[in-house]
This record gives sequence, C-alpha cells and structure tokens, in this order.
Amino acid sequence: MVRTRVHNLLVSADGYAAGEHVTLEEPIGGAAALLRSFDGRVIHGVHGMDDPVTVDRALFSLWGQGVGAEIMGRRKYGPQSGEWPDDGWKGWWGDEPPFLTPVFILTHHARASIEFDNGTSFHFVDASPEEALRLAQEAAGGADVRIGGGPSTVGQLLEADLVDFLHIVITPIVLGAGVRIWDHLAGLEQRFSIEYVSTASGLTHQLWNRDRARQG
Amino acid sequence: MVRTRVHNLLVSADGYAAGEHVTLEEPIGGAAALLRSFDGRVIHGVHGMDDPVTVDRALFSLWGQGVGAEIMGRRKYGPQSGEWPDDGWKGWWGDEPPFLTPVFILTHHARASIEFDNGTSFHFVDASPEEALRLAQEAAGGADVRIGGGPSTVGQLLEADLVDFLHIVITPIVLGAGVRIWDHLAGLEQRFSIEYVSTASGLTHQLWNRDRARQG
Repeated sequence: MVRTRVHNLLVSADGYAAGEHVTLEEPIGGAAALLRSFDGRVIHGVHGMDDPVTVDRALFSLWGQGVGAEIMGRRKYGPQSGEWPDDGWKGWWGDEPPFLTPVFILTHHARASIEFDNGTSFHFVDASPEEALRLAQEAAGGADVRIGGGPSTVGQLLEADLVDFLHIVITPIVLGAGVRIWDHLAGLEQRFSIEYVSTASGLTHQLWNRDRARQG
Repeated sequence: MVRTRVHNLLVSADGYAAGEHVTLEEPIGGAAALLRSFDGRVIHGVHGMDDPVTVDRALFSLWGQGVGAEIMGRRKYGPQSGEWPDDGWKGWWGDEPPFLTPVFILTHHARASIEFDNGTSFHFVDASPEEALRLAQEAAGGADVRIGGGPSTVGQLLEADLVDFLHIVITPIVLGAGVRIWDHLAGLEQRFSIEYVSTASGLTHQLWNRDRARQG
C-alpha cells in the first residue's frame, strides 16, 4: 500500500500553521516562532548528531522514511506571485535542497523543471491537488508521497480525504494571526485514529492515521 | 562525535530483560512475552508499511539510523555453549540477518567470520567489551556502534561507562525470573539525562542520553 503523508506540521496553540504574508525575509510569513522548536537536522535521521537523541527528533525524522516524492504549494517554494520573474530562483534551499526526490510544485504558471545533483528535482504543475497526487505517486515508484505544505495545500488534500497520515506538532506559542489549519475541516477527527504524546520540550505530537476500516 | 548506543531494550515491570535459559526453542530464555510488544518490521524505518505509523514504531526505528557496527554477546547469537559445534549455525536470522553491518560477537571460542550478501558480517572475538568496542568503532567508519545485547553485555558496558545512549522500553508484564538489567548499576541515572514518554500501547520509552557536561 502506498500512502499520502504529512509530516512535521507545526501548529501554534491558536491553530495557525504559517504567518499571513510570505516574503523573502519571512519565509513563513512572520510565524518564524513556530520553527524555533524544530530541529531540521533530524529530517534524514539521527546520523552523526552530536546532540541528544530525543523523542522529538525520533518523530521529526520520520519525514524522509519511505518517501519517494513530495507535493508542495507555490508559497512553500518561494515568495513570488504571478508570472515567474527571470531571477534564477531555485527555492529557499540553495544548491542542496533536502528533499532528495522529485517535488511537484502547484502553480498556475508553467516553468521548466529544475534538477539537482542530490536527487532533488522541482516540477511545476498547473493541476488540482488530486492530479498532482497522481503525478507524484507515479514518480514515487511505489514509495509514499509526502504533502509538504504549506497549510492550505495540506488543507485541500485533507478536505478531499486524500491524506493517510498526518503528523501535527502543537507548539506552546500564540501567534494571533496567520494561515489557519483547521478551517473547513469540522469532524476531521472522525476519519482518523489519533495517538499523541507530549515531550520534555513542551511539544505535543499528534499522529493521525486514517482509519481504513471506515473507508468504502 | 561517534556514539555507543543501545536500542529497543525491552524490560519487564520487574526489571528482567531476558529469560534464564536460552534454548533453540526459546531464543530469549522463556521471556518471549517481552517481544509481543515489539514490531521488528520497523527497525529499518517505516518504509512500505501497511499499518499505522505510531510513536512506538518511530522510536523502535531509531535502531538502524547512523549505526555502522554492532557488538553482541554470544547468547544473542545462538544457544550453544563451549566449543562451537560443526552444525552450520549462522545465527537466528537465516540468510538475511537484519544488521547490514559488521557484527562483533563476544566469545572465548575462536571461529571463522561469516559474511552475507546484504552487508552483514559476523566476527567472533575473544575480547573484553572495551576491546570489542575499539574493533567495532574501527569497522563502523565514523558511524555509531550499537550494543545489541543481551542484557549482560549491555550491563558490562554500562558498568564501564562506555554507553552514550540507551533506549529502554518498559513493558507492562511481570516475568518473575530471568536476566536482570539493573544489577551492579546503582546510581546509573546520575550519569544520564533521561526523557520518557508513555504510548497508547502501554509501553514506556526511556531515552537515556549520557550527560557529557559531567564527563572529565
């Protein structure tokens, strides 16, 4: 079975998963406080870490396991809107994007694909989330597909009931404004089995596994 | 920094980590109940699983991450004692041992190494745990060394203060007899920072990270 998975979705105590206005200076729209609790170094496992092995890191490091492709919204890829400017932009991540797989970026504006030496490639698709998911599943070659965000892309796939696994991390901060994660999703919990643990750092990890017994 | 790590050490409520008499029929000496809570499929990650992604699995799957060699006691390798019989024994795991790295087996009885196609190799060494650790670190090529057990081998390395990370899983069963894990280790907790979480399955995971600030 191939899954569609969401990982490391950091959500504030008041339900925001990103800030309002993404700019070059503020990649997640002023909600940088969300990222303070996240140690990006662990997303490919606990290899070569000098620091303690914690429950947070074990859970964050699920991100890359068994994933063969990602889908992301345009706002996760960059701050531009409308036609792509000829500015050489290749995403926030420089020459070594951490994805190591094909990544499908949802946009209404076509653009040539970009490939990197480390196995990452960016493909720009004018498609519905459902169509993008079909493309990503094909590219993943039998592995799982990760929905990389931002929160509105995740929300669209949740609304369409296309997400099999969702890892939400509730962080004890109050943002007051931003992109809400739970809008249009009333009753979502009824489609999932949910496990949660709270860790020494003050985070609460929720693991939502879609309840297949209840599917048609 | 290279670590020495112990993973997935299942311990009963009364402090036993294995049964008393290892036989061919009872690989952990009648303490098989300990293994009921353990899903061996996750030790190389959550790849291709049909089942829910749980906190237990995320933590069990740290087992292989960043590990380049293992040390195990003879009793983990097989039920024989004394001179090795000429019985073709290659461990409990058949032709696909899950280790995928060199494994150093502590024994007073020399024997030729065994190599498998999947990267696993077994090397039989008449050495102290300290000497074996040096061999394993050399073989691990900059990655971490896992102490694979059984419990008395783990205990010896803990006594010698050679363990940097210890993942203990307390299972809610009472064995009544077996190999104790905590003997000769009074005050052990003072050398570690300890985090724990309890999961939906009833397990309690303890992550012991050696407190380097307190080292000389």
